[in-house]
Amino acid sequence: MTSSQDHNKVGASPIVLSIDAMGGDLGPEAVVSGMSRSAKANPDIRFLVHGPKSKLERLIERKKPLAGRCEIRDATGVVSMEDKPSHIMRHGQDTSMWAAIEAVRNKEATVAVSCGNTGALMALSMIRLRKLPGVNRPAIAILWPSRNPQGFNVMLDVGADVKADAQDLLQYALMGVSYARNGLALDRPRVGLLNVGTEEHKGRAELKQAHELITQVSERAQFDFVGFVEGGDIPGEACDVIVTDGFTGNVALKTGEGTASLIGDRLKEAFAYSPLSRLASLLALTSLRRLKKKIDPRRVNGGVFLGLNGTVVKSHGSADETGVSAAIKLAFQLAQSGFSERLAARLASITDIASENATETSTNEESPK
Amino acid sequence: MTSSQDHNKVGASPIVLSIDAMGGDLGPEAVVSGMSRSAKANPDIRFLVHGPKSKLERLIERKKPLAGRCEIRDATGVVSMEDKPSHIMRHGQDTSMWAAIEAVRNKEATVAVSCGNTGALMALSMIRLRKLPGVNRPAIAILWPSRNPQGFNVMLDVGADVKADAQDLLQYALMGVSYARNGLALDRPRVGLLNVGTEEHKGRAELKQAHELITQVSERAQFDFVGFVEGGDIPGEACDVIVTDGFTGNVALKTGEGTASLIGDRLKEAFAYSPLSRLASLLALTSLRRLKKKIDPRRVNGGVFLGLNGTVVKSHGSADETGVSAAIKLAFQLAQSGFSERLAARLASITDIASENATETSTNEESPK
Repeated sequence: MTSSQDHNKVGASPIVLSIDAMGGDLGPEAVVSGMSRSAKANPDIRFLVHGPKSKLERLIERKKPLAGRCEIRDATGVVSMEDKPSHIMRHGQDTSMWAAIEAVRNKEATVAVSCGNTGALMALSMIRLRKLPGVNRPAIAILWPSRNPQGFNVMLDVGADVKADAQDLLQYALMGVSYARNGLALDRPRVGLLNVGTEEHKGRAELKQAHELITQVSERAQFDFVGFVEGGDIPGEACDVIVTDGFTGNVALKTGEGTASLIGDRLKEAFAYSPLSRLASLLALTSLRRLKKKIDPRRVNGGVFLGLNGTVVKSHGSADETGVSAAIKLAFQLAQSGFSERLAARLASITDIASENATETSTNEESPK
Repeated sequence: MTSSQDHNKVGASPIVLSIDAMGGDLGPEAVVSGMSRSAKANPDIRFLVHGPKSKLERLIERKKPLAGRCEIRDATGVVSMEDKPSHIMRHGQDTSMWAAIEAVRNKEATVAVSCGNTGALMALSMIRLRKLPGVNRPAIAILWPSRNPQGFNVMLDVGADVKADAQDLLQYALMGVSYARNGLALDRPRVGLLNVGTEEHKGRAELKQAHELITQVSERAQFDFVGFVEGGDIPGEACDVIVTDGFTGNVALKTGEGTASLIGDRLKEAFAYSPLSRLASLLALTSLRRLKKKIDPRRVNGGVFLGLNGTVVKSHGSADETGVSAAIKLAFQLAQSGFSERLAARLASITDIASENATETSTNEESPK
């Protein structure tokens, strides 16, 4: 396919990831360090890197594992955390974020990764990659440490949109199931719908309607619907996929992260308190490291945009080398498993079921009024 | 005031609490044990206890600290976790929960405490105690362990209602400020409005409107408004009072609890892993106990219903002796500080400001359309 001179160029290797080097809180230094760590761990990764060329060249030159595995695409504009998505959609053509998504659209790369402004990234992904047929609102899905055997649960939406109606929640359920099958290797994922109680009469109207829609589809779409779940079930074992609107999901995600971080700091303080406790922490070092690895939010860094023609991984804005590397690892796994194509195929096969049921439901709903 | 024969009867002591002994997951045994612990710690507490008389008599007789400090009121009905609030409102007159609230309404007790069904407790509290003038939706406020010097933040609403409009959120801010002043001794509490980002253009429409209303009132009501905050700020130090609707607040509360509980279990596993780590945990026992005390959700057990003529403390349904005792301690503190009266007085003095501003805003809002 390529001439031998191109051997070191991106395109000759099996998996090419498109990296937005800019827009993260720690700058391109953290992104390039994360790329380097991933490259070292996996010889099959190649990168298309977007950002200011001279700066990126200097950073990449310093990292041995990246030698001959990056192609830098000059982009002068940077999307800041303060930029309005609507502004970037109209005027962001020169930004590294735009270029990173464009490479997925052009099939030069399989998955794009960015640490930048979530709203702008979602807006650009939607207009450039376009939604899959049958999808109304795309969603961002994350993996959450849980008590389940697979160690993680899928939660979506965690912030693509601030609202979701019953139909959207149904699609989130379907997309979440697909992600759980591919990402967590679960044959028959169990889906829960997030609410303020598990009784069927509780909560908002759209949730009761979504409960009905998801129940109707679950059998034919081959997943188990456990009904309503509560916040405590997100890290729990009642289900594998937690479905909610992007406002609630985002608050839950950040509350969980904040709580974990507070406990981690308190734990450090507790062990630094006295000479005896400092000795204890030395003895327990391996145990504590093991614990940290299990609950370290940086190691499950990466929200996946679902429902588009192509996959985009959103890393935490404050991601450091470890965090960026985790996001890249996730992007690589999704690229390798052909996730985008599988999700599209699955959605196409069940969209008919869903819309058929929706028509039935809305007819049923309206007649008694 | 009372004759000497009444000395051991409830009513002769400064603070009488009204306790619903039924409806908690662990039954009246846990409630009576919690009462006993609180009674031991504080000689000024007296109890009016509601539930099946003969059963309660047997349980209370076994606890020395409760001798002569309880008056049992026979109530045969029990509100279960599955009962619909609307059903209890119509048919719950014989329940221990109804009687517990009634005692506050009749001024026989200052504060009521219940471990039962939250929805039913709120519904009964609303119809029996009635809302304070100017309050549209009452709210449930909790204390959340935080990085702030006072160790806790106030969050409301965590589940009184599944929705809140801009006016409701403004009232939550005012009530939360009052609770932070009385409960956390903060002169000038800082209020944050929970959203999915801190930028002013983000989030749902009612949040933008609430942002405006709270900004207008903050100066005259003598608190600082820090604007939008995110889930991570709930255990953080950006503000002291977090304002949100009851759906989001409830999910955030239970997510935080679930995350803390998962980490706690993982920590135990980590320390049980090897002989060396078991030795380490022995050495670190005091440190770990100190940590547990700081983050143990049972010790901050108790949601306070705000916005009613009288105070009701909702304990966690699964509360054990420690949890019930924490809820009773909170109830005692609120009763002692005259919180109900203070909150009512403050709301009365600022309701005029709020409604005045609301009228201005709604006029401004409608004119451009």
